[in-house]
Amino acid sequence: MKRLAILGSTGSIGVQALDVVARFPGRFEVVALSAGKNAARLAEQVRRFRPRLVAVADEGAARELCGLVPAGVEIVPGEAGAVAAASHPDVQFVVAAISGGAGLRSTAAAVEAGKTIGLANKESLVLAGELVMRRAEERGVAILPIDSEHSAIHQSLAGHNRDEVRRLILTASGGPLRTVAQAELREVTPARALKHPNWSMGDKITIDSATLMNKGLEVIEARWLFGVDPRRIDIVVHPESIVHSMVEYIDGSMVAQLGVSDMRGPISYALAYPERLALDLPPLDLARIGHLGFEPPDPARFPAFTLAYRALEIGGTAPAVLSGADEAAVAAFLAGRCRFTDIADLCAAALEAHTSEPLRSVEQALAASDWGRREAERRVGR
Amino acid sequence: MKRLAILGSTGSIGVQALDVVARFPGRFEVVALSAGKNAARLAEQVRRFRPRLVAVADEGAARELCGLVPAGVEIVPGEAGAVAAASHPDVQFVVAAISGGAGLRSTAAAVEAGKTIGLANKESLVLAGELVMRRAEERGVAILPIDSEHSAIHQSLAGHNRDEVRRLILTASGGPLRTVAQAELREVTPARALKHPNWSMGDKITIDSATLMNKGLEVIEARWLFGVDPRRIDIVVHPESIVHSMVEYIDGSMVAQLGVSDMRGPISYALAYPERLALDLPPLDLARIGHLGFEPPDPARFPAFTLAYRALEIGGTAPAVLSGADEAAVAAFLAGRCRFTDIADLCAAALEAHTSEPLRSVEQALAASDWGRREAERRVGR
Repeated sequence: MKRLAILGSTGSIGVQALDVVARFPGRFEVVALSAGKNAARLAEQVRRFRPRLVAVADEGAARELCGLVPAGVEIVPGEAGAVAAASHPDVQFVVAAISGGAGLRSTAAAVEAGKTIGLANKESLVLAGELVMRRAEERGVAILPIDSEHSAIHQSLAGHNRDEVRRLILTASGGPLRTVAQAELREVTPARALKHPNWSMGDKITIDSATLMNKGLEVIEARWLFGVDPRRIDIVVHPESIVHSMVEYIDGSMVAQLGVSDMRGPISYALAYPERLALDLPPLDLARIGHLGFEPPDPARFPAFTLAYRALEIGGTAPAVLSGADEAAVAAFLAGRCRFTDIADLCAAALEAHTSEPLRSVEQALAASDWGRREAERRVGR
Repeated sequence: MKRLAILGSTGSIGVQALDVVARFPGRFEVVALSAGKNAARLAEQVRRFRPRLVAVADEGAARELCGLVPAGVEIVPGEAGAVAAASHPDVQFVVAAISGGAGLRSTAAAVEAGKTIGLANKESLVLAGELVMRRAEERGVAILPIDSEHSAIHQSLAGHNRDEVRRLILTASGGPLRTVAQAELREVTPARALKHPNWSMGDKITIDSATLMNKGLEVIEARWLFGVDPRRIDIVVHPESIVHSMVEYIDGSMVAQLGVSDMRGPISYALAYPERLALDLPPLDLARIGHLGFEPPDPARFPAFTLAYRALEIGGTAPAVLSGADEAAVAAFLAGRCRFTDIADLCAAALEAHTSEPLRSVEQALAASDWGRREAERRVGR
């Protein structure tokens, strides 16, 4: 029995992680759950998976939950809850699936507590990858990616020599606006940008897919997760999202991982690693799919991904600023307060206005992200 | 310095293996070469790579070679030559690239002598895979595939658990006649069938690609090389020959190897394994290629591949009979003595006429292959 904490249990990844857990009875034990404010769904999860500890960020939701769950379940309200869940002494494996910068502290806590981590919170590495990975190495902590691209790279590196890697190639679906002309992008509505062709995800990440910022953030994540120079991380647009990413070796050989678009694939890979679970996902039938397309990403229409390379080049707190600025810009776009094309512009402006500092602490990274968020906000307001 | 014997050195794979060797001076030493009858090319290779032993199957060519190479080079004529090269005491690694059933004895000798083998001679496993692999296991001999499909599977299995493999999926280009209608196949000329779209190979294997018999023989090879039940080995037609083959795991995840169509890729992979060589092949640029297509193989137009599954089902000497019958049928087609569509019919007839015996020796496998050859010949003559 692998003993789990699932942080962000009521979100998309959390729910799917529990779905995987439920399919393999006797294999996992849910020791702790952590969520934001969805008390009703959390109560249902508590009744089903019987964790010992439940963290609820929202104080009101925490009070509501008290009346919904059996006595004996420890409820920890507030921001300390996720950290308590991540470092619970009975937990072996932490599914870090809180979304946004809010996930960083609990990821860092899991590293400090020596837990194996299934990382779905990309901001943990975008904001503070240098620190988190260094500390993970010192503590002997394995961080297993829970997203389709980095899981694909993990699977494509397995059994091969790291020092023989020439390039990592992240595939990008291109998002819902892949074929939209440059002039038209200014007029794109939130509803249109939210229609992702392949993946069902939260709003923030769907908009990040539409701008290609998501792929840029994944470049930053890959840079730290796999310790690869960003100049050796490329992006290729692949609309079918079947090839989830690739590794090119020095002999020109590429190893790739392919699969259907179902996050339970990478979730189960991380949960069971180094074993695999016999998931009954619909099989990938390439002969039926027939066609896989590839094209270069277009920096003229989708400049956001190039900002990630720029942030890595600046280094230090710059990626955290980019992440914060993007959170604010996407929120402003979804609220109808700025145009689709403003998102990248706001991020670029925040990045250039920032004076980067060497990264020394998680709190500093969070502060830089907040600075980026406020900077973008301020510019939206103008 | 890895000390090599290259069997079939004047053939397509042999020449490319020596090209790889020449690109990495100080890394390999060519101890022995073995060829059939091309004395002029062999003499040139001897002068360049300075082997200690040279085997020449054709006695006349052996005599011719004596006058062309420096004194001190041991020349071994006749069929014993390849066996002597394969088991030379100074050799560590044998590139088994003799074509056809003629390659089996020297592969078996290399196994007995405990050499690591880079196997380009698929007949070694088609005729006697059960025996060769069992003996290789007993002798602790590693057999590394030198063909693009099995090299791809080798690379896609590395680092993963063998008992979590659900399927091997061999890709097939579909050959030069992939889009030709059934009625028209009867009229296909050798010249047309020899125009392979992606790979430059010998005549026999190019015709085998056109009939899909080659893919069937590769299924037999994969069955023994990777110890996988044939019911878990599938074929998908992929005209671009970029995805060289794939492995599907029990969680639905597929790992694939991709690359340009250049045999120096799989040759160098086997030669340097477990390292990789920094080959300067043209890089694979998927964004430029743009499109990868996949379709099911068509047993109605190309029934030959189904015969391989049938031969494995019969077992024992049946695959050897199929291989021999195919050699004769392809030779007859190339000589204008039968139709393209007769190739599969001749093979099927030989297979059904044969009474299979459990496989006990290499000589028995060779005899079965000869029987298949004669049986197909006899039917062509009618």
